Amino acid sequence: MSNECRVTVWNEGRHEKQHAAVAKVYPNGLHTVIADGLRAHGFAQVGTAVLDEPEHGLSQAVLDQTDVLLWWGHMAHGDVQDAIVDRVYKRVLDGMGLVVLHSGHFSKIFKRLMGTSCDLKWREHEKENERLWVVAPAHPIAAGLPQSIDLEHEEMYGEHFDIPTPDELVLVSWFKGGEVFRSGCCWQRGRGRIFYFRPGHETFPTYFNDQVRKVIANGVRWAAPVNAAAPVYGNHKPIEALD
Amino acid sequence: MSNECRVTVWNEGRHEKQHAAVAKVYPNGLHTVIADGLRAHGFAQVGTAVLDEPEHGLSQAVLDQTDVLLWWGHMAHGDVQDAIVDRVYKRVLDGMGLVVLHSGHFSKIFKRLMGTSCDLKWREHEKENERLWVVAPAHPIAAGLPQSIDLEHEEMYGEHFDIPTPDELVLVSWFKGGEVFRSGCCWQRGRGRIFYFRPGHETFPTYFNDQVRKVIANGVRWAAPVNAAAPVYGNHKPIEALD
Amino acid sequence: MSNECRVTVWNEGRHEKQHAAVAKVYPNGLHTVIADGLRAHGFAQVGTAVLDEPEHGLSQAVLDQTDVLLWWGHMAHGDVQDAIVDRVYKRVLDGMGLVVLHSGHFSKIFKRLMGTSCDLKWREHEKENERLWVVAPAHPIAAGLPQSIDLEHEEMYGEHFDIPTPDELVLVSWFKGGEVFRSGCCWQRGRGRIFYFRPGHETFPTYFNDQVRKVIANGVRWAAPVNAAAPVYGNHKPIEALD
Amino acid sequence: MSNECRVTVWNEGRHEKQHAAVAKVYPNGLHTVIADGLRAHGFAQVGTAVLDEPEHGLSQAVLDQTDVLLWWGHMAHGDVQDAIVDRVYKRVLDGMGLVVLHSGHFSKIFKRLMGTSCDLKWREHEKENERLWVVAPAHPIAAGLPQSIDLEHEEMYGEHFDIPTPDELVLVSWFKGGEVFRSGCCWQRGRGRIFYFRPGHETFPTYFNDQVRKVIANGVRWAAPVNAAAPVYGNHKPIEALD
Repeated sequence: MSNECRVTVWNEGRHEKQHAAVAKVYPNGLHTVIADGLRAHGFAQVGTAVLDEPEHGLSQAVLDQTDVLLWWGHMAHGDVQDAIVDRVYKRVLDGMGLVVLHSGHFSKIFKRLMGTSCDLKWREHEKENERLWVVAPAHPIAAGLPQSIDLEHEEMYGEHFDIPTPDELVLVSWFKGGEVFRSGCCWQRGRGRIFYFRPGHETFPTYFNDQVRKVIANGVRWAAPVNAAAPVYGNHKPIEALD
Repeated sequence: MSNECRVTVWNEGRHEKQHAAVAKVYPNGLHTVIADGLRAHGFAQVGTAVLDEPEHGLSQAVLDQTDVLLWWGHMAHGDVQDAIVDRVYKRVLDGMGLVVLHSGHFSKIFKRLMGTSCDLKWREHEKENERLWVVAPAHPIAAGLPQSIDLEHEEMYGEHFDIPTPDELVLVSWFKGGEVFRSGCCWQRGRGRIFYFRPGHETFPTYFNDQVRKVIANGVRWAAPVNAAAPVYGNHKPIEALD
Repeated sequence: MSNECRVTVWNEGRHEKQHAAVAKVYPNGLHTVIADGLRAHGFAQVGTAVLDEPEHGLSQAVLDQTDVLLWWGHMAHGDVQDAIVDRVYKRVLDGMGLVVLHSGHFSKIFKRLMGTSCDLKWREHEKENERLWVVAPAHPIAAGLPQSIDLEHEEMYGEHFDIPTPDELVLVSWFKGGEVFRSGCCWQRGRGRIFYFRPGHETFPTYFNDQVRKVIANGVRWAAPVNAAAPVYGNHKPIEALD
Repeated sequence: MSNECRVTVWNEGRHEKQHAAVAKVYPNGLHTVIADGLRAHGFAQVGTAVLDEPEHGLSQAVLDQTDVLLWWGHMAHGDVQDAIVDRVYKRVLDGMGLVVLHSGHFSKIFKRLMGTSCDLKWREHEKENERLWVVAPAHPIAAGLPQSIDLEHEEMYGEHFDIPTPDELVLVSWFKGGEVFRSGCCWQRGRGRIFYFRPGHETFPTYFNDQVRKVIANGVRWAAPVNAAAPVYGNHKPIEALD
């Protein structure tokens, strides 16, 4: 199944150019490391796209051939053109999976699909560490995971996370400084499936972590299109005689 | 509790002016009949507002003093100003309840809060009738209801209804012509609570029906603000020492 | 994936022996036709078991080698031994999928996993027909389905269906006589996944219907074990130093 | 509303008799302090019952006049008679609210209503502390609460908590030692409403804490009976003519 799934990893790609601390960890961009992780977990068709490409690398042709799109953005959410956001939005409602990573919680596309502010608490601290607990061990995104995942260094995100109640909650994070966070959340919108996964601050090597990669790979598999019939809307004749 | 709850019934109010068939059933507007229904069920503070008033009758002052807003619209969704939609949206996330009625499924405010197209099937047919079944008899919106409610004449709305999975599903409709519909749906967004209730086509006396009125009154009570602490977002110091 | 999934179809198998009308439609038992349907949809390892076999055909060895168990029962729920129910129950919590069909709603195993009475309304009528609507077109159990499925003759099941709120609701049935029913329902219990699917009265050829077979095959795929780590319970040492 | 709600606080009541450390904190039993907390929050009709009374203090007459039952048990779950558990179970399905506290997670009544093992991780450590975060600030059980509640000393309960997915998740706990827990969980079963609330170890003065008392009072209000029509089950005539 992973072989057939066409994945596009989208990355803003600005931090890597502007901040040495980020370029040091991700010299070729976060997207290349995320894509490598998917390939390491069996995905054969993985492309990438970044903000500064024409149409942000997300032409209609690219989206039409994408089964699952991953989204990492942070400092330049406002630079994403509304027309491209519309295009992605329509593809999600039409069945394309979407996996939103870390600071992508504030992207235009995520906020539009959620209908809320998607705000949260955050903190950067050198001594912080994160533990992600599996709260739904029967969920496909937990496949092959241990009971919890430890990340030695991560940015903290804390509740309240202003999202709609997830259809399914898979992971809850503990942070040393005293906070918790719903870190692995699933929703359905139209015919599309959306997975939000918290970790992935740009200054930490999180996307090299094999357990993190496994969660993302599981999330992509879970979000892959289902191919039910497209619902027909509008004026509808009765099937039963009404007289 | 109903006595303290400040309710505003918003109505587009255009059909009543333009279509004799509507004016005949609702000569003073749908909003007046909906408001009467709430008063009959114990609400003491019920105001109304319509599209053609200044600021659509929804000034910041009005919204600030509204605990629960009801919304009926249909032919003029596009005429609702985006700035007013923004204002309502912010109030909902901040705790104001919202009860969306019938064709309000296509209103700007509902689509924004849902993050989906909110599309559906529909049919007007003189012989159609609707039966709403309670599927959640432990839910406060089912309080005092029989097992099902019969409406002799109603417009049909059919699945698929393109909404996020409701947090709680209270009522499912049966239509004579062969369709079903999730007719009573609850969501939480931010600190606000949203109830969608299907019936209420403008040419039928649905809002005079006492069981319909009971559902709406229950929905308003359910959607009333909870008054938990407003979450604080942004940079957050550790409560535990991190060294 | 279907090739690797080991399926056991359990059937009470009493109606077929006692009622000519059932034997005429299912001369070799409901289980053989359900199993054929799974094979037709790509499952290579499909076994069967019936009530009147030793241990009801559900020895520990059989269950240990079963990834997903299907359950059809009706007139002899009380004859299922409690020790076998315990055995199945433990396997479900430990990860085995369970697909409960039609009158299996009243089986001991389903009631135990649900924690409710699982009661409902029902009616047999020669003129009844059923239409199942997909309400979650992004769900894997809707894969390859049209917007709705028509069954010309079926027994009616009507709400209220006394189940816990499904984690996911995929199908809602319409019946000609005026009822609706939550016909395709998903739950997680422990590490196991449970799908209830309504149709399948013993006097109708429902399990020969290819769309019904597709739903069941999708349900089995959905319910297959996930293989997350088995949670460890009990006394637990701190990972962080507590001094 | 609180005035009209008839509450019964049930307590096992054995620790208080056998362990000096418990008797010191709760000399008159946990139930008396929990009941005092409810009275302090506006409940006028609060009774108590303990295991060692005849019928465990839960005669049919007592249950018939109880709107919401609270349940604290730990060391003597096995001593609760099955016939009394049946009686409570039927009352819950028929509409009585149930609030299960702390170690009540392993009570017969909770396990029966959940359909799972209800197992979890735990730890007693003098340096442990707990912070409960509100993750659903639009939920009535969060009414009047701050963003989080701190408890200086509590027993740890950690995930995985083997419960069905809560219909609504209100509170998530952080523990200093590295764990998280779904601490405020809501379900509907039949016409009854169930709230599980984690804190309340018998050696700590948790039930004197006013914020804890507020959560419990909110939970009781939330769980109070709704009084929808009792569903009728069984053979059901068509409402529509079927010929």
